[in-house]
Amino acid sequence: MIYDLTVVQFSKMLTNLSAILDKAAAFAETKKIAPEVLLNSRLAPDQFNLTRQVQIACDTAKLGAARVAGKADSAPKHEDTETTLAQLQTRIQDVIAYLATFTPADFTNAASQTVSQPRWEGKTLSGVEFAIQHATPNIYFHISTAYAILRHNGVDVGKKDYLGAMPYKS
Amino acid sequence: MIYDLTVVQFSKMLTNLSAILDKAAAFAETKKIAPEVLLNSRLAPDQFNLTRQVQIACDTAKLGAARVAGKADSAPKHEDTETTLAQLQTRIQDVIAYLATFTPADFTNAASQTVSQPRWEGKTLSGVEFAIQHATPNIYFHISTAYAILRHNGVDVGKKDYLGAMPYKS
Repeated sequence: MIYDLTVVQFSKMLTNLSAILDKAAAFAETKKIAPEVLLNSRLAPDQFNLTRQVQIACDTAKLGAARVAGKADSAPKHEDTETTLAQLQTRIQDVIAYLATFTPADFTNAASQTVSQPRWEGKTLSGVEFAIQHATPNIYFHISTAYAILRHNGVDVGKKDYLGAMPYKS
Repeated sequence: MIYDLTVVQFSKMLTNLSAILDKAAAFAETKKIAPEVLLNSRLAPDQFNLTRQVQIACDTAKLGAARVAGKADSAPKHEDTETTLAQLQTRIQDVIAYLATFTPADFTNAASQTVSQPRWEGKTLSGVEFAIQHATPNIYFHISTAYAILRHNGVDVGKKDYLGAMPYKS
C-alpha cells in the first residue's frame, strides 16, 4: 500500500502535472507571451515561483519513494538548472522513469525503515510516517500550488487535470 | 494503514487548517479589515472562494473516511451556510470529532469496499483506490488552495503551518 501511495500515485500526479504544463505552454503560445513569464510567476513575493514548485514536486516524488525504500543514496541527482518548460518536462519524465524502477517489495520494511533529512539534525521518522505525513502532503502542496499559479494567470486548468483519470469500474 | 492515511492524517490536516484560519483572523484584526474580505477571496474569477475551499476540505475529510469505511449514510450533514471564520472553525471541529469515532477496524475491508458518488453515474472505485487517488489528493488540493489564497492576501503562513508537527524521534 505504501508503494501505491508513493510510487504509483506520485507517478500519476507527475503525469498530471506534465499535462498541466502542456496547457500552460499552449496558453503562452495562444496569448503570444513568453513561457518564462509563467515560469517566474508566484502568488506572493516570498513564495517559490512556478519553476521551483515543479522542481520541488519532482524531488518530493523522487526522494519520497527513495527514502521510504531506503535507497536515497542511489537516487538520480537534479541540479535545479531548468529554465524552460521543455527542461521541466524532461525532469518530470526522468523522475517518472526512476519511479518505475521500484517494486512493491522495496516497501516491505517501510514501517521499520528510518528516514531522515539533513535539516532534521539527526531526528528521524519511520518510513510510513514519512510517506503519510511528509512526502504525501508535500507533493500535493507543490502540485496544487503550481496549478494555482497557472490558474491565477488565466490558464484553463480544472480539477480533472489535477486528479487525472480514475480507475472506475462500471 | 488506510485508517492512518485518512482518519488520522485528515484530522491532523484539519487541525492545521484551523490554525491557519486563526492566523487569518489575527491578520484581519491587525490590518483592520473585515474577515469576510478574506473569506470571499479567490485566485481566479471562476475558482471557489476561501469559504468554499474550507467547506470542501471538511467534506472531503468527512466523506473520505465515511465512504471508505462504508458509513457514508450515517455521516453528519453540513449545509454550507457558514459566513464567518468562527462558523468555519465550528465545522472543522465537528468533522474532527466525527473522525474520532472511527477505529482502524472500520477500514479492514477497504480493499473490497465499493465507493461511489452521485456524479459518477453508477461507476465505482474500491475503498483503497478512492482513499489514495481521490480523497487524499482532493483534501490536500483544497487545503493548499485555502493556504494559497491567504498567502496571496498577505497572511504570514508557511509550510510548517500546512504540514503541522511531525512525530520525530531523536
